[in-house]
Amino acid sequence: MVPFKPFEVEQWMDTYENTPDVLNVAETCCSSISIDELSRFSDDKLNHLRIPTSLKLTYGPILGSPALRQRVAALCSDASRHCLTEDNVIITQGAINANFLVLYGLIGPGDHVVCAYPTYQQLYSVPASLGADVSLWALRPEAGYIPSVDDLSTLIRDNTKMIIINNPNNPTGAVIPSGILEKIAALAQEKGIILMSDEVYRPLFHNGHNDPSSPPPATALEYEKIIVTGSMSKAFALAGIRIGWVASRDRAILEKLIAARDYTTISVSQLDDHVACYALSLEVKDRLLERNVALAAKNLSLLKEFVDTHSDICHWTQPSAGTTAFIQFCLNGQPVEDVSFCKDLLQKTRILFCPGSLCFGGGKDFLGFVRVGYVCETAVLQEALAKLAKYVRQLVH
Amino acid sequence: MVPFKPFEVEQWMDTYENTPDVLNVAETCCSSISIDELSRFSDDKLNHLRIPTSLKLTYGPILGSPALRQRVAALCSDASRHCLTEDNVIITQGAINANFLVLYGLIGPGDHVVCAYPTYQQLYSVPASLGADVSLWALRPEAGYIPSVDDLSTLIRDNTKMIIINNPNNPTGAVIPSGILEKIAALAQEKGIILMSDEVYRPLFHNGHNDPSSPPPATALEYEKIIVTGSMSKAFALAGIRIGWVASRDRAILEKLIAARDYTTISVSQLDDHVACYALSLEVKDRLLERNVALAAKNLSLLKEFVDTHSDICHWTQPSAGTTAFIQFCLNGQPVEDVSFCKDLLQKTRILFCPGSLCFGGGKDFLGFVRVGYVCETAVLQEALAKLAKYVRQLVH
Repeated sequence: MVPFKPFEVEQWMDTYENTPDVLNVAETCCSSISIDELSRFSDDKLNHLRIPTSLKLTYGPILGSPALRQRVAALCSDASRHCLTEDNVIITQGAINANFLVLYGLIGPGDHVVCAYPTYQQLYSVPASLGADVSLWALRPEAGYIPSVDDLSTLIRDNTKMIIINNPNNPTGAVIPSGILEKIAALAQEKGIILMSDEVYRPLFHNGHNDPSSPPPATALEYEKIIVTGSMSKAFALAGIRIGWVASRDRAILEKLIAARDYTTISVSQLDDHVACYALSLEVKDRLLERNVALAAKNLSLLKEFVDTHSDICHWTQPSAGTTAFIQFCLNGQPVEDVSFCKDLLQKTRILFCPGSLCFGGGKDFLGFVRVGYVCETAVLQEALAKLAKYVRQLVH
Repeated sequence: MVPFKPFEVEQWMDTYENTPDVLNVAETCCSSISIDELSRFSDDKLNHLRIPTSLKLTYGPILGSPALRQRVAALCSDASRHCLTEDNVIITQGAINANFLVLYGLIGPGDHVVCAYPTYQQLYSVPASLGADVSLWALRPEAGYIPSVDDLSTLIRDNTKMIIINNPNNPTGAVIPSGILEKIAALAQEKGIILMSDEVYRPLFHNGHNDPSSPPPATALEYEKIIVTGSMSKAFALAGIRIGWVASRDRAILEKLIAARDYTTISVSQLDDHVACYALSLEVKDRLLERNVALAAKNLSLLKEFVDTHSDICHWTQPSAGTTAFIQFCLNGQPVEDVSFCKDLLQKTRILFCPGSLCFGGGKDFLGFVRVGYVCETAVLQEALAKLAKYVRQLVH
């Protein structure tokens, strides 16, 4: 048996997200959109998204359509640094499949992996399931969840094969600034270690998706042995099409991943590829991101107002990107037992959060924390926050 | 590094299938169809397949839509034996993903796996990549490629975790008859070994998709620890939607697979799920299969005529199901060197075959064999066979 652990956050969502009348503030996608809504982002009435119903549904281009790979290459580039081409991109079935492919294709028994923590459990549980040793690289709230390069250097071993970061970070919404990112890449380069950056929440920066102060995609840094993964699900609000990607400038890495992908994927949905390609066309992409950044900003201000008003029982490091916030609730100065807190909250109010210690802390860390997915419909967040205010007031009194 | 080998048949296809003007008789799908063509299988003009463009593209039902899972459950049932329900089915991204999930979820270091041979390389290379010992269970041409239960019993060890069959078989097109299938299941049951049956070519039986002499889906046998995988790609001609499945009556197996699937998939395309559900509706499914069985029968008769006419240089075990035939070419009584034969054939005639020793024999077995994917458009097969006849006559003279 492969010794993999339950994927707690996914199992939590599977168990509770279909609760009748749920107020889902646990979901990490920007409020999902439909094909009809997506089509409205184009001014050109003739340029509506039409599904190619006369297309023979063969496997299609094995690595993804050239047009889609070109558009993803642009997302993984920085015009002032390195520009990627379609040859640097492999299309996958969502970021979950992209991350899995990178790990299955490159990691095995005898390897050591360093992974930022807290983060999405897949990034450290899958390497362990494949027989690797994994060291967790703690992100500290007192440092705003920005990783410490000094800490990283103490974790690296002779057999360290990969360093894994998640930028912007789930669950904290923290962003690794350019300067730190460059230092991480320089250290990886010095040791010849692959740097993998899960950028599934990019470019949902709260200062705007084109904010020049945001860090570049990691594939635009000097070091070649860098892998970026991403998808249409989070920042692009299209989880219902299963389109993600792996990008790298390193040919040897890409060839290993393409060889591994033959065993897991073959090709992606031709219909999904078509929709993603449309969504990443210049005109549509910018409007879609404007919609999502605006929704994130509006909802974050509501969440901030809640945290500020209830500073006696909750505190956070305010997120600067992505769709999630990591908030600690305390009663009488002690963190709440977050699993029972979330279950009781769901039962009494229909508000769905993810408990931090269960989903991100292996049952021991991040006690009292909950992950809030706040880029849902604003009305859902408003109703949830109003009910939450009542609920926590009753706990206090 | 995971010690996985190149997936030869997939790499061969990737390398050559886009050759300009190729006569592709290597593809294993029934000639693919479009959404427009699929819609014509319904008499009811209001019942055309329409993509749900107003649907919010969320992740959707995590295991696949209940309607699709019900329809797949029916495919994996035998009314006179065991009937499965939607709770016995998990939707995956094609059969490649279904097979991978079963192996990643259940097999690891220390396990032993027995796999029918020749077959699709994924079924034995992935268990090896996960650290298992793999024994190949030879299917012999003199036995019509029907597996020997006596041979199986000599391969089983104390740590045998899984027996893998492929029924109907790729590349031979042979079918394991009901009686043998039951004996395999009985032996697996006696030893407590999981039986996995890759049924991706089911129900494309050349006697008709409802032929009562065909074996039942393995999930309808008495033993519970049986897993069936399948997809929309081959018999249903819809590879461009990435929809496959895993079915089992064993709850513990399903729970392990669902837990593993959280790490690889999350959910499948909502658009693809919708198309598959339509294609498996009663009226459409039967007409689609009738189209494909008729195309297979017609093309097989053309191929048989070729083999009969050229019996001095080629011979086969005539396939009884699926889309592939395994044909050995000999010159002067010696098998041709099949890789250079296929390359030369492609260069001179644009006919694409898969070389047997490279793609199915690990470079040492099945010398002189080629796999022909003959359920393409009939005109393509006709042109290919006419050119092939000229080509082989030149070799002989």
